[in-house]
Amino acid sequence: MSVLVVGTVAYDTVKTPAGSRSGVLGGSAAFFSIAGSYFVPISLVAVVGDDFLDEHLRLLKSHGVDTSGLERSAGESFRWSGVYSSEDVNMRETLDTRLNVFAEFSPTLDPEHRTMPYLFLANMDPALQSSVLDQMAARPKLVALDTMNIWIDGSREALEETIKSVDLVFMDEGEARSFSRERSVVSAADRILDMGPSTVVVKRGEHGALVRRAGTAFSVPAFPLEHVVDPTGAGDSFAGGFIGYLAASGDLSDEGFRRAAILGSVIGSFTVESFSVDRLHTLTPPEIEERFRALTNLIRFEPLRDRESLPWRETTRQKSGG
Amino acid sequence: MSVLVVGTVAYDTVKTPAGSRSGVLGGSAAFFSIAGSYFVPISLVAVVGDDFLDEHLRLLKSHGVDTSGLERSAGESFRWSGVYSSEDVNMRETLDTRLNVFAEFSPTLDPEHRTMPYLFLANMDPALQSSVLDQMAARPKLVALDTMNIWIDGSREALEETIKSVDLVFMDEGEARSFSRERSVVSAADRILDMGPSTVVVKRGEHGALVRRAGTAFSVPAFPLEHVVDPTGAGDSFAGGFIGYLAASGDLSDEGFRRAAILGSVIGSFTVESFSVDRLHTLTPPEIEERFRALTNLIRFEPLRDRESLPWRETTRQKSGG
Repeated sequence: MSVLVVGTVAYDTVKTPAGSRSGVLGGSAAFFSIAGSYFVPISLVAVVGDDFLDEHLRLLKSHGVDTSGLERSAGESFRWSGVYSSEDVNMRETLDTRLNVFAEFSPTLDPEHRTMPYLFLANMDPALQSSVLDQMAARPKLVALDTMNIWIDGSREALEETIKSVDLVFMDEGEARSFSRERSVVSAADRILDMGPSTVVVKRGEHGALVRRAGTAFSVPAFPLEHVVDPTGAGDSFAGGFIGYLAASGDLSDEGFRRAAILGSVIGSFTVESFSVDRLHTLTPPEIEERFRALTNLIRFEPLRDRESLPWRETTRQKSGG
Repeated sequence: MSVLVVGTVAYDTVKTPAGSRSGVLGGSAAFFSIAGSYFVPISLVAVVGDDFLDEHLRLLKSHGVDTSGLERSAGESFRWSGVYSSEDVNMRETLDTRLNVFAEFSPTLDPEHRTMPYLFLANMDPALQSSVLDQMAARPKLVALDTMNIWIDGSREALEETIKSVDLVFMDEGEARSFSRERSVVSAADRILDMGPSTVVVKRGEHGALVRRAGTAFSVPAFPLEHVVDPTGAGDSFAGGFIGYLAASGDLSDEGFRRAAILGSVIGSFTVESFSVDRLHTLTPPEIEERFRALTNLIRFEPLRDRESLPWRETTRQKSGG
C-alpha cells in the first residue's frame, strides 16, 4: 500500500544549543517522505524553486520516493529559519518564514495519485488541504492531516471544515488545547473526535504522544536520548513512521494504531539526533528494529491476569467487602 | 510485610488555581502512610505539636497506621504554605516553611520498629535519614529515600553519604538533574545508580515517572485527569503506593518494580484530585483497581512476537540485506 503526501519541501536555517545550519533540506513533506519510505512507497506532491539542488532530488529518489508530483517553479524554494531555546529544546522561535514558490502552490493531482489508498495532508492552509482531498477519485482508506497555530488562530473555520472530512488529526499539545479550548489533553482530543475524525494524535515532544480513539487511548513516551541536536522535523517524521506503518501493515485496528505510535516515536527520535534529514536519511531496518525493541522494553509490563487482584491489606479488603 | 516511614506530619496552607485551604493535614509521612495503608500495615515515626488535632490522629488510625512512633511535643506542628501557578500547576512557590517542633526532631526508634522489613526515609535532612537507618537492628529488605533541592544544594555531601546506603532513591526530574549534573533523565538516574542504589525513580509530575535499574528502565505516564485540584503530596502518595505494593507483593523483581510504578502513579493521581488527603483518605480497593486497569489500558500494546519483523518495504529490506 502506498502513501501520498502533500506538503512543503524547504530549505531551513536553524540554530539549536548543539550548533547551527544554514539552508539545509527540510519541510514537512520531505521529513514525512523519508520516514515513511522505510515501510511503503511514498508519492510526494510539493513545489520547489529553481534553487533546489539535484543532490536533494537524488536523496529523495534514493528512498524510492516518487517525485513525479514535485513541481519546480521559477523562484526560491520555501525557506524557514528558527532558533531553539537552550533552556528547553522543545521551545522554538520562528525567525523568518518565506513561502516563496509555495505561495502560489495549488497542485493538480496526477491520475495515479488520485487513487492512492493513504493520504497525508501535511501542515499547510486548510483550504489547500481540502482542495487536495476533493481531487481524490475514491475515498482513501485513511486520510490524515497535520496543522499548526497559524491556521488555528487565522483560519479556524476552514480548518474545522477540513478536519470534518479526515480520519486522523495530528496536533501538538499546545495546538490541541488552543484549538479545542480544553485544558486537559484527553478532553482536547475528545473535542476533535466529536468533529468527525476517528483518531487524534497529540504530539508532546520529549514527552511522547497520546493516541485517542473512541473509547480508548494509548500513551507512548519519547525514546530517551542523551543528546537532542535539532528537533526540526520530529513531528513529520513521527507522522511518516506512523502512517508508513499503518499502510505497510494494513492494520487499522486499535492494536495497529498503538504499534504505529511506537514506531512514530522511534522514527522521530532518530530525526532529532542530527540536523536536517542527516540521521533519518541513513537509517537501516536493524537500527529501527533495535530502537523499537528498546522503546517497547521501556513500556512493557505484566498486566493483571484474569481474576488476579492487587495485594490488598487484609483490613482494607474487609472494609470494602471485596 | 510492614513498612516503617519516618518524615513529616504537617499542616499546609495552599493556594491552587482550583481554590485555597488553610491549615489542612499534610506532610510527607502523612501522605505516604495513608497511600501505603491500602496494601500493608504502616508504622509512622514523626513529630507533631500540641496543636495537632485528635481528628487527624483518628484519621491515621482509621487506616490502621501504627502511630506509636508519632511524638507529640510542646509547640506548633511543622507548617508549610505554598502557591501553585495558574499557568502550570506543576510549578509551585513555597511562601513559608516553619519547622516548629520538627526542628528538634531526632527520633529514637522503638525496638519493634528497628526490625521492620521496609523503610521509607521521607524528605528531610540526610543526616537525620542516616541516623534512622543506623538504628535498624537488621538490614531491611528495602530502604528507600526521597529528598529535595534544599539538601542537594545545601547538604550535598551528607546526602551522597546517605544515598550510598539505600536501595531506592526517589527524586523529581529537576532534582535528579541538579544532583547528578546531567541533562538527560536517564543519565541523571545512572549517575545515582553508580553511587550504590539499585533503583532510581525519577518523578515527572504530570508526565509520570521513570524507573531506572541496572540494564533496564520503565516509563509510566501520569493518569490523565480532567482537573487537578492540588498537587501537594502527589510524590509522597506515589512513593506510598509504590513501596506499599512492593511490601505487599514481596515481588522485588523487575516486573514487581514496574507494577509498583503503575500503582504509584495511580495512587498519586487520586491525591491531586482534592486538597490535602481528602480523596486519598476515602479510596476503596475497587476504585484503585479500576484506575489501575484504566492506566494499564493506556500503555498496553502487543509486542513483536518471536521472529516477527516490522513490515519493511521490499527495497528497504533488500538494501539492508535483511
